[in-house]
Amino acid sequence: MQKPSLPVFIPSGFRFAATACGIKKSGKLDLSLIVADRPVRGAGVYTTNQIVAAPVLISQSRTPSSEIRAIVTNSGNANACTGDQGTQDALAMTAQVANKIGCDPDGVLVMSTGIIGHALPMEKVTAGIDAATEALSDSESSFLSAADGILTTDVDRKVVSTQIKIDGQTYTIAAMAKGAGMIAPNMATMLGVVLTDAPLSANVAADVLKTAANLSFNRVSVDGHTSTNDTLLLLSSGEGEFLDGDELDQFQYRVNEVCIDLAKKLVADGEGATHVMAINVTGAANEADAELIAKTVAASPLVKTAITGGDPNWGRIVSATGYAGPKIDPTKTSLKICSVTIYRDGSPEPFDAKSLSESMKSNPEVEIELRVGTGPGQAKYWSSDLTCDYVRFNSEYTT
Amino acid sequence: MQKPSLPVFIPSGFRFAATACGIKKSGKLDLSLIVADRPVRGAGVYTTNQIVAAPVLISQSRTPSSEIRAIVTNSGNANACTGDQGTQDALAMTAQVANKIGCDPDGVLVMSTGIIGHALPMEKVTAGIDAATEALSDSESSFLSAADGILTTDVDRKVVSTQIKIDGQTYTIAAMAKGAGMIAPNMATMLGVVLTDAPLSANVAADVLKTAANLSFNRVSVDGHTSTNDTLLLLSSGEGEFLDGDELDQFQYRVNEVCIDLAKKLVADGEGATHVMAINVTGAANEADAELIAKTVAASPLVKTAITGGDPNWGRIVSATGYAGPKIDPTKTSLKICSVTIYRDGSPEPFDAKSLSESMKSNPEVEIELRVGTGPGQAKYWSSDLTCDYVRFNSEYTT
Repeated sequence: MQKPSLPVFIPSGFRFAATACGIKKSGKLDLSLIVADRPVRGAGVYTTNQIVAAPVLISQSRTPSSEIRAIVTNSGNANACTGDQGTQDALAMTAQVANKIGCDPDGVLVMSTGIIGHALPMEKVTAGIDAATEALSDSESSFLSAADGILTTDVDRKVVSTQIKIDGQTYTIAAMAKGAGMIAPNMATMLGVVLTDAPLSANVAADVLKTAANLSFNRVSVDGHTSTNDTLLLLSSGEGEFLDGDELDQFQYRVNEVCIDLAKKLVADGEGATHVMAINVTGAANEADAELIAKTVAASPLVKTAITGGDPNWGRIVSATGYAGPKIDPTKTSLKICSVTIYRDGSPEPFDAKSLSESMKSNPEVEIELRVGTGPGQAKYWSSDLTCDYVRFNSEYTT
Repeated sequence: MQKPSLPVFIPSGFRFAATACGIKKSGKLDLSLIVADRPVRGAGVYTTNQIVAAPVLISQSRTPSSEIRAIVTNSGNANACTGDQGTQDALAMTAQVANKIGCDPDGVLVMSTGIIGHALPMEKVTAGIDAATEALSDSESSFLSAADGILTTDVDRKVVSTQIKIDGQTYTIAAMAKGAGMIAPNMATMLGVVLTDAPLSANVAADVLKTAANLSFNRVSVDGHTSTNDTLLLLSSGEGEFLDGDELDQFQYRVNEVCIDLAKKLVADGEGATHVMAINVTGAANEADAELIAKTVAASPLVKTAITGGDPNWGRIVSATGYAGPKIDPTKTSLKICSVTIYRDGSPEPFDAKSLSESMKSNPEVEIELRVGTGPGQAKYWSSDLTCDYVRFNSEYTT
């Protein structure tokens, strides 16, 4: 998988720009634009929160579609809980982009992230969209600027790109995202965009994105708090016959990888995080059960703090499987941390605690392998650990 | 409601003792005994965790019953994940008490709390039971010792007692509990005992206890991690006609109050807690929905840290209602913190943020009133806030 410091593969047919229009007081990039040269297929996956921001409702109503031309994103203001004004503002953003690039407003998708409950500073946004449409380019630096323009308090840029050869044809996938964890007074919202020049129909694009999201962004958590603005979009610019059958399977697999890689970057950059916990549950009755158990272990503050402290505390992990909900077999429950078996078939195993604690502390990713029975269900889940920095960051702000 | 510093009302028919038998390295009291002079009605409510400690299984199999004579509790070792040995040890504890006081082992209930995955030091436990049975007394100081003997890392003793007059007859209720929050390497387990001289049948005692537990101990959380050992027991020593009808309703109400009071003590003494959050959800479709929404708000690390910091951050609270699961009406969602309306019918309300922040900081109990629609469902829930001390306490231990 491509690292951001290496050259980025950029699918053909897209141009990018970002500007600092003044939404963020810091003066950092806060308006980002992705424009397709021609109408492309677009699909989206959106927050399941019942409190939904205006831009989410608009993008949701416009996907899947075969006529998408652009994605406009502002950071620094989530345009959430902003009532009718928020809807008007989000519509105005898409209308302005449509007018500038010459398409129907329905061909423009919109995302927002940042503080909630405040109206967008539309004068600044309008100027920003004007400036961005003038600066569009297909260069790597423009792509990276667009990726930077969607960040809020993320420490690191989150970009993944790759190429895949299917039946002799090389396709490119490039993706960007911004961080998880909700940040006072901002809501840090997960936003992501996957671009490809592989030819996909709009409906297939929607399926591919949903499958990938379920295996990646829906399997990570920082603090378990679902934002009002979460949005993941996929645009496919590829011409010619749409992928299907085996070709599509190969492509799906690679999109899964890209999304998992991006999702793990979100967790690694979670507020105050010092470790990624990678939880792999096997032996559950089915995949849904395995996912719920993994998610419960991932969310336990006692498990998170044990990982922070490099403590191979099997009691906390095993007991979390017992209250997750799905049926488990306590006599067939086993646990490995960093490949060391410390609990087998319901009983503790002797292990070198000091050495295991050392490898937990020194590994940025701590692997937790949990067998909960003899069923076929398995699932992976990623979470950040819980540190004082998280608490400080989220409590030492006062309205 | 009686405070522990005031005289404690103790129902007639019970004697108490506690000893330090050496399970705890600190030398603190770690074996506690409650003995009824005659067989009394006993009922229990137990952990829903599928990983269940041996003493829980034994007490569970012996309640409800009209032939209970004693409760023996050790602290410092949970006798959980200890296999057949654990079952033998727990049975041996009850058999020894039964032998000492002259009853069938089925008349003795057992609770344990402390480190998991280690066999009980039975030589010490046996000596402790011998010493405790010699020291039994109905004095207030013995009752308080018994309450101290079930604590682990709790800072404060948790005792509530009260009297209620029903149809000219005065009944006494005295209850003790130990703390929530799971503590490395211990599992801090909720244990509780309610004693009364009000006459209840065994089955009614079970109903009364279940109702009270659902409104109290099942409505509090420190870190949402359900222990393997949670046990709440009720013993009724009262002779004569069993309470029913209006009399029983009055009694039930008072037991609810006692249990809510005890449960709030658990939260206030949660690890690192600086505030109790009291979450009152109204307007949900039904009580179960209201409870789930309140629980979700209570569990959000972002809400908890906002309370820690005295931050009236309505975005975090309102967005948590939106991902809790139950249907809400975003246009009828309103929020008060410390009686100040800050969000009304889906829109932010102007308020004096500085003054509200001051009252949040200075109030040990921060009240969050959340209306989520126009339905009849309501529920109260209590939780601790999340501080660096919690993280430190739970991460700075290494096996």
